[in-house]
Amino acid sequence: MKLVRKLASRRWRDRLGLFVCEGEDLVEAGLDAGLAPVEALVDAERPVLAGRLDAEPVEPKLLAAVSDLGHAPRVIAIFRRADLPQFEGGVNPPGLSLWRVGDPGNVGTLLRAADALGGSFVCLSPGCADPTSGKALRASAGAVFRVPIGSFDAAPRPWVALVPEGGRPLSEIDGAERATFVLGAEREGLPADVVSSCDVTATIPIEPHTESLNVALAGAIALYEATRRDGRE
Amino acid sequence: MKLVRKLASRRWRDRLGLFVCEGEDLVEAGLDAGLAPVEALVDAERPVLAGRLDAEPVEPKLLAAVSDLGHAPRVIAIFRRADLPQFEGGVNPPGLSLWRVGDPGNVGTLLRAADALGGSFVCLSPGCADPTSGKALRASAGAVFRVPIGSFDAAPRPWVALVPEGGRPLSEIDGAERATFVLGAEREGLPADVVSSCDVTATIPIEPHTESLNVALAGAIALYEATRRDGRE
Repeated sequence: MKLVRKLASRRWRDRLGLFVCEGEDLVEAGLDAGLAPVEALVDAERPVLAGRLDAEPVEPKLLAAVSDLGHAPRVIAIFRRADLPQFEGGVNPPGLSLWRVGDPGNVGTLLRAADALGGSFVCLSPGCADPTSGKALRASAGAVFRVPIGSFDAAPRPWVALVPEGGRPLSEIDGAERATFVLGAEREGLPADVVSSCDVTATIPIEPHTESLNVALAGAIALYEATRRDGRE
Repeated sequence: MKLVRKLASRRWRDRLGLFVCEGEDLVEAGLDAGLAPVEALVDAERPVLAGRLDAEPVEPKLLAAVSDLGHAPRVIAIFRRADLPQFEGGVNPPGLSLWRVGDPGNVGTLLRAADALGGSFVCLSPGCADPTSGKALRASAGAVFRVPIGSFDAAPRPWVALVPEGGRPLSEIDGAERATFVLGAEREGLPADVVSSCDVTATIPIEPHTESLNVALAGAIALYEATRRDGRE
């Protein structure tokens, strides 16, 4: 229980290389991906995942006490970060590369979007939110167990910088179906040196009075455009 | 101050027809749209929007005390719901119609997506989150002041139901550029009677092992697809 509480902090997750999943859907996604938890606690009164999970039955109020959420999950499991799929090449674009996207909800949503829309990796720069925080895991809906995560520099070329204005319209970019889409954080966007390190800049056409799209929507639209062209529809 | 606190509850917003905007960006979006707040409070030490807003200067700690957020906003303004743009016909699709989308972040994000991607209205069924809650307003990034909101039944035809599987591929739907896209809540989706009241069902192709897209991403992709065809790119 103490360990679960500790792992609410990124410092402890980084130090121990462990993270906590709450709830049946997320824990099951981990098991489905072949991961074995290092610890698991299950509601003694309403157990779940019986037969699939070697979990210690505990009182629901104890689960509520360590939960990140408002209510008591029926299961909590601790997994090893090193067991998550890592991007080490060998998978082809399209994929996403995120520059200092600090919001865990956006990082999780983009993992989920990659998973659903045929993105084969998500690369993260330093300064990105931890994809194994509670909020990112919930937003990812289990995609963290399926989509390989790599470091920003490791993303395969070509890199297509998505910028709010001035790039070529996304639908006219050649080779988008084999590209890494590079996205910046909501307010800051991509700094000039990151944009110039990219091979192309692209823009999703938006109405002139609006500032920009939410980063999660921009990433999803880019992947939709890329995989749409790939002839899958 | 008491009124600001009261308006944190939907019951009071419904009863009084008022809502609270916190922060310079949101209040300015309201002013830009031509709305006049019924009340406004501004940080006496670091005032903002001087000359544009007739606001009562108050101590920052008072602003912090009534804020919905963790920190003190520099301005808080109360607006009338009746002054927001209402959808009463006269605007053409594409647009969105949401069925029981209860998450305020999703409702706000879809308003923002409509605003940016050329959707001309968002219709809401009973059971949808209030677009004037603090969370929805923040996610909308001011779009609530620009995108007309109507009731679900008022959405113009044709209605294209977006379903996770079994519909025609979105890119093959005829007339998508003149359609209302009907979206359901994340887990429940659209009930059968709502789907059968629609003119067409469409599906965004996703990877077979994934359950569905986040409703905000699905709506944004539908509008991107619709306006992309409209020859704007």
